[in-house]
Amino acid sequence: MDGQWEKCRTVLVTGANRGIGLNLVKALVNGKFTPEIIIATARDPGGAEELQELASKHCSIHIVKLDVIDQQAIFQAVQCTSSLVGERGLNCLINNAGINLRDSLEEVTADTMMSNYQINTVAPLMIIKAFLPLLRKAAKQTTGFGIGRAAVVNISSCLGSIQQTWEDGAEYRCYPYRASKAALNMVSRCVAFDLEPEGILCCSLHPGWVRTDMGGQEAPLGTTESVEGILSVLGGVNRNSNSLLLDWTGQKLPW
Amino acid sequence: MDGQWEKCRTVLVTGANRGIGLNLVKALVNGKFTPEIIIATARDPGGAEELQELASKHCSIHIVKLDVIDQQAIFQAVQCTSSLVGERGLNCLINNAGINLRDSLEEVTADTMMSNYQINTVAPLMIIKAFLPLLRKAAKQTTGFGIGRAAVVNISSCLGSIQQTWEDGAEYRCYPYRASKAALNMVSRCVAFDLEPEGILCCSLHPGWVRTDMGGQEAPLGTTESVEGILSVLGGVNRNSNSLLLDWTGQKLPW
Repeated sequence: MDGQWEKCRTVLVTGANRGIGLNLVKALVNGKFTPEIIIATARDPGGAEELQELASKHCSIHIVKLDVIDQQAIFQAVQCTSSLVGERGLNCLINNAGINLRDSLEEVTADTMMSNYQINTVAPLMIIKAFLPLLRKAAKQTTGFGIGRAAVVNISSCLGSIQQTWEDGAEYRCYPYRASKAALNMVSRCVAFDLEPEGILCCSLHPGWVRTDMGGQEAPLGTTESVEGILSVLGGVNRNSNSLLLDWTGQKLPW
Repeated sequence: MDGQWEKCRTVLVTGANRGIGLNLVKALVNGKFTPEIIIATARDPGGAEELQELASKHCSIHIVKLDVIDQQAIFQAVQCTSSLVGERGLNCLINNAGINLRDSLEEVTADTMMSNYQINTVAPLMIIKAFLPLLRKAAKQTTGFGIGRAAVVNISSCLGSIQQTWEDGAEYRCYPYRASKAALNMVSRCVAFDLEPEGILCCSLHPGWVRTDMGGQEAPLGTTESVEGILSVLGGVNRNSNSLLLDWTGQKLPW
């Protein structure tokens, strides 16, 4: 058992149909963790076969339809989640859904910039706002600071580190993605500042460069290693890690 | 004469109808600086009375209509600028146009996030791309690195510093603005990386908190002080300042 996980009764993961999202849900039911309720959202639950199969074996998993850029869908997902978690509220919201538009300076357009921002930056913020009553409900029930109480985790990227643009991975010139993740890190930090007085933590998390549809097959890290790292780090986040950008090993990354 | 200004023959300033943009143009014709051509863009030149009056007294000032979020208008402004600067190309592009949407966590909507990003982040990037042939033309004519050759300056803000979100000005909870400026700093840094081999510099600049329509009357800094600082800093930017976020005194700010 890692850190505060034993006190974390309810978790929501967006974009749980594949990649890191799906693997987070898989790891959460592998026996080491015991959330009572795992809400796994997907834009198209009908097409999420692996997630459906997993949910059929684990009754703690509840699949909820959610297109993260559809405000009406967000409200419906909140209502549905509210019914499922009841008086427990929501302990841990993991904003994982995102896309990676890799346009270089030559390729980038206003449209790719806007759409990557909408999905990677604006959607997480709108989801945080919408789920805030459920996070507050959980936060009011206990003390402490972390996923054992109430926490928002935004899955970001080292490619959102402005500092590292001239260091690691400088060759990856994906303007829409990088800009959206830098802005997401800003959102995390502002949310952390605003919600700390209410006992709600918020941080950004870099999952590593992982072999998923997004990361590609040349990525050095397997999903299992990344996801076990992420869950272990999340179990340990506390007041010292509030508002930071951490990687899957718990290392703090520069802005 | 400040640094490289004597070698800077052509300058373009967006959002030159008021505030810092207008005052940059004013300062550029005050006698200390000698650009041969100053392109001052405004969304509505007809309503830019002070700029019109200034241009009537200084024939180096050319007013060009430019709505920064209109791709067609950007192309037209490039054509017009190209005719004006001719073989000189463009030495210094100052992306100054921007807005400040101050929504708190309670107030922020997807619309305010998207529109502030479009104007403050996407527009500067699209303008850089469109004016790149003119910057390249200037860069090919000389050596060195800075506004005496070819440079892009994005007017950003200390409120775009993710680090400082928990330090100075933490009480200013303007989500749309902060996120857009953090992303703009990322754009500056990526552009700096991509264009350095061609001898084109790019940096972000925080003008200070200035008494303008945007900054409000409680701001501590007058426009003259800010603008003189900015122009002095720009005269000195070189390979060491490439890609950085500097303030109007030349101080490097954290990301």
